[in-house]
Amino acid sequence: MKSKPTLAAMDMEGVFTPEIWIEVSKKTGIEKLRLTTRDVSDYDVLMRGRLQLLKENNLTLKDIQSVISTLAPLPGAVEFINWLETRSTLIILTDSFYQFVAPLKEKMGNPTIFCNQLITNGHNQVVDYVLRQRDGKKHAVLAFKSIGFRVVAVGDSYNDTSMLLEADNGILFRPSENIVADFPQFSAVYEYEELQAKMIEYGI
Amino acid sequence: MKSKPTLAAMDMEGVFTPEIWIEVSKKTGIEKLRLTTRDVSDYDVLMRGRLQLLKENNLTLKDIQSVISTLAPLPGAVEFINWLETRSTLIILTDSFYQFVAPLKEKMGNPTIFCNQLITNGHNQVVDYVLRQRDGKKHAVLAFKSIGFRVVAVGDSYNDTSMLLEADNGILFRPSENIVADFPQFSAVYEYEELQAKMIEYGI
Repeated sequence: MKSKPTLAAMDMEGVFTPEIWIEVSKKTGIEKLRLTTRDVSDYDVLMRGRLQLLKENNLTLKDIQSVISTLAPLPGAVEFINWLETRSTLIILTDSFYQFVAPLKEKMGNPTIFCNQLITNGHNQVVDYVLRQRDGKKHAVLAFKSIGFRVVAVGDSYNDTSMLLEADNGILFRPSENIVADFPQFSAVYEYEELQAKMIEYGI
Repeated sequence: MKSKPTLAAMDMEGVFTPEIWIEVSKKTGIEKLRLTTRDVSDYDVLMRGRLQLLKENNLTLKDIQSVISTLAPLPGAVEFINWLETRSTLIILTDSFYQFVAPLKEKMGNPTIFCNQLITNGHNQVVDYVLRQRDGKKHAVLAFKSIGFRVVAVGDSYNDTSMLLEADNGILFRPSENIVADFPQFSAVYEYEELQAKMIEYGI
């Protein structure tokens, strides 16, 4: 075995945890917080709308964090992460924010997660957000490859496809039908056991 | 707070765990396995010598792993890692090998560790090693910076100084006196509490 070490670059929401904004929408009753990039294709427009909704509804960061701290990882996620961390290197890449992810990270056993940042004002209101970089998942995969890793990427959604395309192998986990149709080159799996088998096949 | 997210790039041996080859030397009684890059400056010559010693003494990878599995992280290391993982992103960078690190990784709570690889033959004898890349710690720090992180690097030894130099801030943890004299630009700390205080000062 003289091949490169492997690294698993994995999406978080939909793969290990519920979709955070959708859960916040459900628990706060603010219907429009359900909108995603499927409804509003420009991410910045979508995020500005979300921040506006938080402001209109007087929700502070702490309020949102309280909602998020009632969430749990998906059933089987913690066991999957343990399995993966004993046989390879896992880095979770998410477009979500450190301030949202913190309560869930601990419940997942503190895996390494690369996120973006929310900006709050003195009243704990979320006033802005900062991306670590544009198309951060894709660039993280490129960075891992540049330092000698074979990368297997796993995601569920359109915002994961650029990292799946850059990885040595890409896997769709619980994707929608459209994404399977649009990206037939990626294997699609729906349960953690299938995902394990596919990752082993890809050298993890 | 509109600054970049922070990432802590930290050495493993001497910072979180004992020096593995030295412990293997002690427990097997093979005195020459104590040699380090301080004694043999060419790393490849040093490693070839170590592999030769393993062969001469009929030690398989499994034998070495049995020795390593009796080791524990340094006192306070696990608590430090937990503290760090709840406030920042930790990646441990080591020149050691996945096959050596595995038993210690679990005892540290499965942090993310970038390593090198040992090559075994059909008799479980270690016959070769592969570096992920030359000067891997330094290049990992450069990669993290290239994807938008502010990097604080921590190490104890000469093989850490190139990553400390590339990081936004470098800290020496329990260094020898020579290294402190040679690199006066880095803060030197000796206890985890001091290290925490220094890392907080550097934005972690």
